[in-house]
Amino acid sequence: MMEPAEHQSAPQPSPSPAPVYTSTPLNREAISMEKAFESKALPPWNEQITLRSMVVSAFLGLFLSFIVMKLNLTSGIVPSLNVSAGLLAFFLMKTWTSALERCGVFPRPFTRQENTVVQTCVISCSSIAFSGGFGTYILGMSRKIAEGFDEARTSVNVEEPSLGRLIAYLFLVSFVGLFSIVPLRKIMIISYRLTYPSGSATAHLINSFHTPQGAIQAKQQVSILFKSFVGSFMWSLFQWFYTAGNGCGFGSFPTFGMEAYQRRFYFDFSATYVGVGMICPYIINFSLLIGSIISWGIMWPYIESKKGLWYDEKLPKSSLHGLNGYQVFISIAMIVGDGLFNFFSILLRTSYDMYLKRTGRSKASPMPFAGAGVAINATERQALSFDDRRRTQIFLKEQIPTSVAAGAYMLLAGISVVAMPHIFRQLKPKHVVWAYVAAPIFAFCNAYGTGLTDWSLSSSYGKLAIFIFGANIGAKDGGVIAGLAACGLMMGIVSTASDLIQDFKTGYLTLTSPRAMFVSQVVGTGLGCLISPIVFWIFYQAYDIGLDEGYPAPYAKIYRGIALLGVNGWNQLPKYCLRFCAAFFLLAVAICALKETASNKGWWIRDYIPSALGMAVPFFLGSFFTIDMCVGSVILWMWQRSDAVHAQMFAPAVASGLICGDGIWSLPSSVLSLGNVNPPMCMRVFDADTSFKVDQFLETLPPPVLAS
Amino acid sequence: MMEPAEHQSAPQPSPSPAPVYTSTPLNREAISMEKAFESKALPPWNEQITLRSMVVSAFLGLFLSFIVMKLNLTSGIVPSLNVSAGLLAFFLMKTWTSALERCGVFPRPFTRQENTVVQTCVISCSSIAFSGGFGTYILGMSRKIAEGFDEARTSVNVEEPSLGRLIAYLFLVSFVGLFSIVPLRKIMIISYRLTYPSGSATAHLINSFHTPQGAIQAKQQVSILFKSFVGSFMWSLFQWFYTAGNGCGFGSFPTFGMEAYQRRFYFDFSATYVGVGMICPYIINFSLLIGSIISWGIMWPYIESKKGLWYDEKLPKSSLHGLNGYQVFISIAMIVGDGLFNFFSILLRTSYDMYLKRTGRSKASPMPFAGAGVAINATERQALSFDDRRRTQIFLKEQIPTSVAAGAYMLLAGISVVAMPHIFRQLKPKHVVWAYVAAPIFAFCNAYGTGLTDWSLSSSYGKLAIFIFGANIGAKDGGVIAGLAACGLMMGIVSTASDLIQDFKTGYLTLTSPRAMFVSQVVGTGLGCLISPIVFWIFYQAYDIGLDEGYPAPYAKIYRGIALLGVNGWNQLPKYCLRFCAAFFLLAVAICALKETASNKGWWIRDYIPSALGMAVPFFLGSFFTIDMCVGSVILWMWQRSDAVHAQMFAPAVASGLICGDGIWSLPSSVLSLGNVNPPMCMRVFDADTSFKVDQFLETLPPPVLAS
Repeated sequence: MMEPAEHQSAPQPSPSPAPVYTSTPLNREAISMEKAFESKALPPWNEQITLRSMVVSAFLGLFLSFIVMKLNLTSGIVPSLNVSAGLLAFFLMKTWTSALERCGVFPRPFTRQENTVVQTCVISCSSIAFSGGFGTYILGMSRKIAEGFDEARTSVNVEEPSLGRLIAYLFLVSFVGLFSIVPLRKIMIISYRLTYPSGSATAHLINSFHTPQGAIQAKQQVSILFKSFVGSFMWSLFQWFYTAGNGCGFGSFPTFGMEAYQRRFYFDFSATYVGVGMICPYIINFSLLIGSIISWGIMWPYIESKKGLWYDEKLPKSSLHGLNGYQVFISIAMIVGDGLFNFFSILLRTSYDMYLKRTGRSKASPMPFAGAGVAINATERQALSFDDRRRTQIFLKEQIPTSVAAGAYMLLAGISVVAMPHIFRQLKPKHVVWAYVAAPIFAFCNAYGTGLTDWSLSSSYGKLAIFIFGANIGAKDGGVIAGLAACGLMMGIVSTASDLIQDFKTGYLTLTSPRAMFVSQVVGTGLGCLISPIVFWIFYQAYDIGLDEGYPAPYAKIYRGIALLGVNGWNQLPKYCLRFCAAFFLLAVAICALKETASNKGWWIRDYIPSALGMAVPFFLGSFFTIDMCVGSVILWMWQRSDAVHAQMFAPAVASGLICGDGIWSLPSSVLSLGNVNPPMCMRVFDADTSFKVDQFLETLPPPVLAS
Repeated sequence: MMEPAEHQSAPQPSPSPAPVYTSTPLNREAISMEKAFESKALPPWNEQITLRSMVVSAFLGLFLSFIVMKLNLTSGIVPSLNVSAGLLAFFLMKTWTSALERCGVFPRPFTRQENTVVQTCVISCSSIAFSGGFGTYILGMSRKIAEGFDEARTSVNVEEPSLGRLIAYLFLVSFVGLFSIVPLRKIMIISYRLTYPSGSATAHLINSFHTPQGAIQAKQQVSILFKSFVGSFMWSLFQWFYTAGNGCGFGSFPTFGMEAYQRRFYFDFSATYVGVGMICPYIINFSLLIGSIISWGIMWPYIESKKGLWYDEKLPKSSLHGLNGYQVFISIAMIVGDGLFNFFSILLRTSYDMYLKRTGRSKASPMPFAGAGVAINATERQALSFDDRRRTQIFLKEQIPTSVAAGAYMLLAGISVVAMPHIFRQLKPKHVVWAYVAAPIFAFCNAYGTGLTDWSLSSSYGKLAIFIFGANIGAKDGGVIAGLAACGLMMGIVSTASDLIQDFKTGYLTLTSPRAMFVSQVVGTGLGCLISPIVFWIFYQAYDIGLDEGYPAPYAKIYRGIALLGVNGWNQLPKYCLRFCAAFFLLAVAICALKETASNKGWWIRDYIPSALGMAVPFFLGSFFTIDMCVGSVILWMWQRSDAVHAQMFAPAVASGLICGDGIWSLPSSVLSLGNVNPPMCMRVFDADTSFKVDQFLETLPPPVLAS
C-alpha cells in the first residue's frame, strides 16, 4: 500500500536520494563480519523456521509475557527485553542441540538465522503483553479503576475486561501493525539506512555468538563486544544495589547540579544510551541536544512562568491540560510534520517513477536489488562495503509481496470496521475507518523515528488517539471507552511497527530471510494474542488489580485520567497549545524541505541541518538520554581522533556490548522485582539545605546495629 | 650516626642486598627522561639555590602556612600540599623570569633543580604549620581547651601558648628531624629503592614542566601525564560538588554494601590512591589488603564482640582505652617491629663491612656511588636503566657529611636537654634524653613506611609518645603537658623525616643536588619556625579558638583527651592489648626474618612474602585506601597484560598525573573552604530502611522552588 511496487529493476530519476543518515563510520566495518561467515551455508528461508525454534519461542514468549504482565500491573515500567530474548533464545537452542548431540542425535546445526527467527517471534509475542494495554487502556476501562474517579462512572463509560473479547480485540488490532509495516521495511532499512541502534546491537550479539571458529579478525570484534557486554552488565548490576526507593541511584544523579536536574538535564550513567549515541549519527545526537535545550531549557520554563494564566495551576503533573499537554502535543506535531513530509516525499517520488515506467520513459537499471523509491544509485552502491552489499542482496532477494500485505491489511480493516463496534459499542464504524486510515501514517512516523533515535513514542501516539477520539465522541456517548479503545488500536499498530522494523534490521544484519522473519512475526503475534490475555486473566481473577497494595497498575489510572480530560473537548486544551503545535508542525516541514533542497542542490550545509524529528523526541521525554547519547558521540569522536582505524573496527562492537549488557540486565532485574527482592541501598543527592535537614533527622533515628 | 660511613669505594660482603621492592616495572622507564634532558647543563649545587627561589619560597611558605593553620583550627583535616607547592613554585618562578625577560633583563634560566629546591623549601616551611601541633598538642595544653574537661585543670597541667616559647620550642624540635634523616636518605632511596609515590609523582610533574622542546618521546609521556592530571583534577572538582555535609560524596560511597562500609571496606574513588597503587609494588598493595582483612575484617569485629568484657562499652570512639587503643598500639607495634628489624639489619651489615675494611679484608669496589651498606652489586647496577644510573650518580656525588649531620644532631640534642625543661617545666632532662634516643628509630620506621606505602603515620607515633610519657610522669607532676610536649618532639622528628625523604626522592628524580636540597630544607625549616607561630598567634589573639563556633579545633580536644587517658597509666589499657602488641611485634620480626632469609637463600617464595609494615598500616587507618591501591594494581596489571610496552612507558606518567591532579585540587578546595564556599549538594547512600524513613521525612518538607 505504501510501498511503491516491487519491481526488480527500477528507474533512478532523482539526482540524489532522500537524506541518508550515515555520517558515522559505524555502518561500515573495516573487518568484514560476512566474510567470516562465508564458509557457512545460508539456509533457505523455510529452513530458518524450524519446529524446535517455534517451541522455544512459545516457551520464551510465555515466560517473558508473564514478566511483562506483572511489571505492567505493579510499577507500570516495562524495560525493553529484546536483547534478553535474543540471548535466551541462543542459550535454550544451544542447550537443546548440545543435549541432542550428546544423546547421539545430530540435529540440523543451530544457525544465526534460526536465532534471529526465534528472537523476533518471542518479541512479537511478548510485546503484545505491553502494547495490549493490560496495564493501561484495557484496565483503564474497568470498573475497579473507574471507581477511583468521580466523573464518567456511567455504564457506557465502563467496560469490564472479558477473556473472549480481549482475544478478539487483540487479533483485530495486532496484525494490522504487522501488515502495515511490511512494505515499509525496505524504505527504512535500505533507502534511508536508518540505524535502529537496539536492533543493530542485538544483531551484533547474535553474529558474535555464531562467528565461526578461526575467523581471527572477527574474533577480535567478538572479544571486544563481550568485554563491553560484561562491563555494561556489571555496571547495571552495580547500579541496581543503590536504587532502593524513588529518585535513588545513578539514574537520578544531578550531574550538572540540582537546577539542571529539575529541568531533566543530567547524565544518567545509562550504558544503553551511551551505546545508542555511539551508533546514531552525530547529527541526530546533536539534534536531540538542540531539542532538549529549546524545550526543557527555554520553552517549558517560559510556559511554566505562565502557570495560572495559560492553564490552571492546580492541575496534577500528568494532566494534558497543563504543561504535559504542551509537551505531548507539540512533540507529536513536530514528529508528524517530519514524518508526513517524508511519507509524501516517498509517495510522490514513487508515483513519478511509476508514471515514468508506464509511459516507457524509464531507463532499465541493472541493479537487482533496488525497488522503486529504494534509491540507491550505482555510485552509492559501489561505496557500500562488502557486508552491506551482501546483506542488501539477501534482504531484497526474498520478497513478501506488497499485494499480500496490502490485501491482508484491507481485509483486516474491513473485518474490524464491522466487528469492532460489536466489541466496543462506543466505537462507531466511521471511527474505525478513520483510525485505519490514519494509523499507517503514524506507524511510518514512529518506525522512522525509532530508526533515527531508538525511541519508540507509541504511548504518545496512543495518548493523542485517546484525546482526539474522546473529544469527538464526548462523555455521553461513551467517549472514555471509545478513546481508550482507539488508543489500543493506535498503539497496537504504531508500537508493532517500530518493534518489528527493529527486528527486520536485526534480520538484515544476520542475513535472515525477510520472509522467514515475517512468518515468524505472524506466528509470534498470533501466540501473543492468545498468551497475553490469558496471563492477564489469571492475574485479574486472582488479585485485586488496581488497589494500591500489591498491584496498583498506576498507568491504568493515568490513561483513564487522560480519557476523562479528552471527553471535555478541545477547548480545554491549554492556551495557545494548538498554535504552538501548528508552528512546530510547520517548522518541522520547513526543516525537512530545507534538508531535501540542500541535499538535492549539494549545498554544504546539508550535513549540518538538524533533524526535526530528533529535536522533537526530547520535548516530551526530557534531556537525560540526550546527554547520554552526546556522551556516546563524544567518546566516539575522541576515539576516532586518537585512532581512526581502531574506532572504525571496534566502535560498533563496543556500542553493541554496552546496549546488550544493560539490556540483558533488565531480565534479572525484572525477576528480582517480581520476587520482591529489593535493592539494599539508596544513593541520593540532596541540595545542601535539605542535606542539613536530613542530617538532623537522621540523628533522631536509633544508631545502626553495626558500630563503625 | 646511622649512616655507615661515607667511603667512596665499598666492600660487597653480603651475597644479596636487603629486600628491594621493585617488582613493578615502574622504576624503569622505557623512554629515558634523562636522555631528553641531556642537552641541558646541570647547574652546580650552589647555583640551584638562588635568591629569587628563596624569596618565592618565603612567599609561598607564608601563603601555605596560613591555609594549613586555618584548616588546623577549623576542621583539623589538612590535605597534603606537596604537589601544590611544586606547581605554584613553577608558575611563580616562570612568571618572574618571563616578566624580567620582557623587560629586557635575561636572568639565569629557570631549571627543574631550582623548581625542586623551591618546592622542598616551601614544604619544609609549611609542614611545620601542621607538625607544629597548633591544632593538636600545643592548643591541647591551653586553658581554653583544658576548661572543656573535668580532669587535670590544675596549673601544672595547663600551659598557655606564648609566642616566644613556641618559636624556641619549634627551633629545638624541627631541626632534629632534619638532621636525623639526612644520613638515612641513601639507604631509603638508593639501597631500598623505595617508591615514595607522592614524591615520585611530584618529580614527574616537575620534569614534565621542564622537558626540553623537541624531545619527542618524552613529550608523549608529558602529554599523557597532563591528560591524566587534568582528568584527575576534574574528577576531584566534580566530586567536590557532592560533599556538602558529613558522610557525603564519593569518598563515602559504600561500594561493597553498607556492612562492608561500616567496616571501612569501600572504594572511595580517590584518584590519588589509585595512582599510588600504580606506583607501589604489587606485593605492598597485596600486603595492605591482607592487613585490612586481618584487622578490619577479623580482629576488630572479634574485639568489638568483647565490648564490655575487655573494655568499657561506654567509652567514646576516640578513646585509646577502647577499640581505638588496640588499633593504635597494635599497628605501631607491628611497624616498629618491621622498622627495628631493618634498622638493626643495616646496622649489623654496616658494622661488619667496616670491620672487614679495617682488617683490610675487603675487596676494592670499582663502583663510584655505592656507600657501605648501600648495597648495589655490579650485576644489579648493570640492570639499572640509564635514568637510574644517572640519577644515582648525581645523588651520590655531592655528599652532606654524616659527621656534620650527626654533630648537629648531638648539639641540638644537648641544647634541648638543657633548654626543654625550661620551656616546659613538666619535662625533666632525662625524659628529653630518652626522647632524643628513641626518636631517630621511629623516624627511620616512618620514613621507611612512607616510602613503601605513601602513608606517614606521624600522628600515631605522637599518640604513642603522649601515652608513654604521660603514663610515666603522671597527672600530679604535669603528665598531661609532658605527654603533649613529648608528642610534639616525636611528631616533629617523625613527620619531618618522612616529608623530607619524600622530597629527597623528588630531588633524586630531578637530578637536584642533595646538598642544595639540604640547604633549602634548613632555610625552609627556619622560615617555618618563625612563620607558623606568628600566623598561629594572629589567629589565637583574634578569635576564640576552641569554641564550637568558627574555630572549633577538634583535634586539640582529642589530643588532650588522649593525654588525660595516658596519665591514668598503663593498667588502664584495654585487656590483652599489650599481649596483642607483643604478638604482632614478634610476627613482624618473624616475617622480616623470613623475607631476609628467603632473599639470601634465593627461595622462590621471597617475592610472595607480604610486608609486615604494609600489613600494619591499615590496622589503624581502615581499608578504603587499600582498595584504591589494589584498584591501581589491577589497572596496571590489566594494562601490562594487554600492552606491556605501553604500560611500561606510560604507567608512571598516568599514575603521577592521577596523584598530582587530585593533589593540586586540595589547594582550591582549601581556599574555597576558607572562604566559606560550601559545596551545593550532598550525595549519600542509605540502607533501604533508612531511605524509606528519609523519604517519609522529605515529604513533610515544603517542595523545592523549581517544579520538575
